Amino acid sequence: MHVLVIGAAGMVGRKLVEKLADDPSVFGFEVSRLTLADAFAPPVPPSIQGITSALTLDLAMPGEPEKLIEGRPDVIFHLAAVVSGEAETDFDKGYAVNLDGSRMLFEAIRLENARAPYYPRVLFASSIAVFGQPFPQKIGDEFLSAPLTSYGTQKAITELLLADYSRKGIFDGIGLRLPTICVRPGAPNKAASGFFSNILREPLSGKEAVLPVGEDVRHWFASPRAAIGFFTHAARIDTALIGPRRSLSMPGLSATVGEQIEALRRVAGEKAVRLIRREPDADIARIVAGWPTDFDARRASELGFQAETCFDDIIRIHLEDELGGTHA
Amino acid sequence: MHVLVIGAAGMVGRKLVEKLADDPSVFGFEVSRLTLADAFAPPVPPSIQGITSALTLDLAMPGEPEKLIEGRPDVIFHLAAVVSGEAETDFDKGYAVNLDGSRMLFEAIRLENARAPYYPRVLFASSIAVFGQPFPQKIGDEFLSAPLTSYGTQKAITELLLADYSRKGIFDGIGLRLPTICVRPGAPNKAASGFFSNILREPLSGKEAVLPVGEDVRHWFASPRAAIGFFTHAARIDTALIGPRRSLSMPGLSATVGEQIEALRRVAGEKAVRLIRREPDADIARIVAGWPTDFDARRASELGFQAETCFDDIIRIHLEDELGGTHA
Repeated sequence: MHVLVIGAAGMVGRKLVEKLADDPSVFGFEVSRLTLADAFAPPVPPSIQGITSALTLDLAMPGEPEKLIEGRPDVIFHLAAVVSGEAETDFDKGYAVNLDGSRMLFEAIRLENARAPYYPRVLFASSIAVFGQPFPQKIGDEFLSAPLTSYGTQKAITELLLADYSRKGIFDGIGLRLPTICVRPGAPNKAASGFFSNILREPLSGKEAVLPVGEDVRHWFASPRAAIGFFTHAARIDTALIGPRRSLSMPGLSATVGEQIEALRRVAGEKAVRLIRREPDADIARIVAGWPTDFDARRASELGFQAETCFDDIIRIHLEDELGGTHA
Repeated sequence: MHVLVIGAAGMVGRKLVEKLADDPSVFGFEVSRLTLADAFAPPVPPSIQGITSALTLDLAMPGEPEKLIEGRPDVIFHLAAVVSGEAETDFDKGYAVNLDGSRMLFEAIRLENARAPYYPRVLFASSIAVFGQPFPQKIGDEFLSAPLTSYGTQKAITELLLADYSRKGIFDGIGLRLPTICVRPGAPNKAASGFFSNILREPLSGKEAVLPVGEDVRHWFASPRAAIGFFTHAARIDTALIGPRRSLSMPGLSATVGEQIEALRRVAGEKAVRLIRREPDADIARIVAGWPTDFDARRASELGFQAETCFDDIIRIHLEDELGGTHA
């Protein structure tokens, strides 16, 4: 099977490819060819170099999505996106990449499909940003997408396209609405949600972190390990069980910033907690106030998707997967 | 005020312009200029010819939406669409007009807005086709858009764009999710919903009509007169009351085909009912089976939008507005 990962230089993309390098049977089928694509040169783990091509391209550039599809990949992980903060400040770029890039990809599949029978599986990284306030206490599977950001709008639109193209038999799509991934490794990006990870990751490495919102802010989380699990599960699942509503809110863990900090205290002690510096930011607080806080992710759970149930586990996973099991 | 009607040759467009001709104060402001646009030459009532220009253009053609906006209309009725049946069979045309045409219109407003302050009101004709089975008994204002047709997908996407452009302060948009308009005057079009009107309109004129589905099929209706009322009300309303969820399910009347026929019998007698010929059509039945049957249109009702509450009234309105008060 030929697997294509778009957005392979991003955090989820890199971890997904590393997982495949560690466990070649993780998708439930043999990967005979792997194509990695991103706007930045995607890293290739040494152990899978033989079967892999790496492409650097702009998904929003006409003609580029066709290049990705001409090799007729069987399974496509579509993880590429301009992140929320940038999509909000750069309206054109957000729509160009997050909406037009996705649509051109889907259209490239339709063209290939019209040329000769072709029916890939498309696994799309959507987001809980498709939802906007006011919310019920828990967001269920029938709650409307009413995003309050351009990023959320672009994700919600791509979900609608994914469902329509799947309904038309053009491809076999699943949209995975990821919780906020925490603890996000590496350097902060432009996502307004960055602080949810910063306040854990930086202190765990002995560094100071800025908390721009109050401790009562509640949010919806899953670890990077859980996120990779969502995608590998989606690659294996029987899509006949999903029906026409192709996008699923993934399971996760609802926690307040205060609960995050308490978990940090339990796992890494008071010294780590003291590295969190309060520096309120009204812009970030306003964006975050429009985000979901809790879900009843019943459909995804029934389909076998799994996430953490305790924040201490989320921190321990970061220690295990990123810091060799220890903290500063 | 300069008013632009896109889709002015369609049923709702024509009736809206006729209403303005009859009652120049219907929008609550003086119309000093009226621009009518459609893919087909839009009719112009004699009494408002002096202030009106009529344009024949393809909304999906790059550059055309800009032509509509260069006159800086203050209120834009966006009623243009490829209908459901055609959007389902002609995938490219449906997306080109219903999605790209709408988006190019919104982008033309954004460009004009960037040139010099400009903040028109945009009233978009959406549809209950944004919803797909399975449904709750009544569809409430927080129920998800999960369309089962390309037409519904295109309308749902345009709603998302309308909300995001409104949130960004580019224009002041309202999406009106119209019930199925009944009794639709004139000749049948390609909409799969056509029979809901045909089985009343044709017998009321002494002609035979085909019923392709069973009498137990339930659906959601409003008269053409109510539809015009929705748009004139939306032109006047204080949009600050609407909030960020800019699309509203309009009020309507839930009735089965059997209840439609009983109303026809009460208003026009057994002779009319005998003109309905049963001719089951599995394709139409399948499409219709995915459509909504009943709503709790609370937000729109609280905002003052009104529809009929009895099917006999829907038939009587057709007699009054189309047939001089009598039937065959």
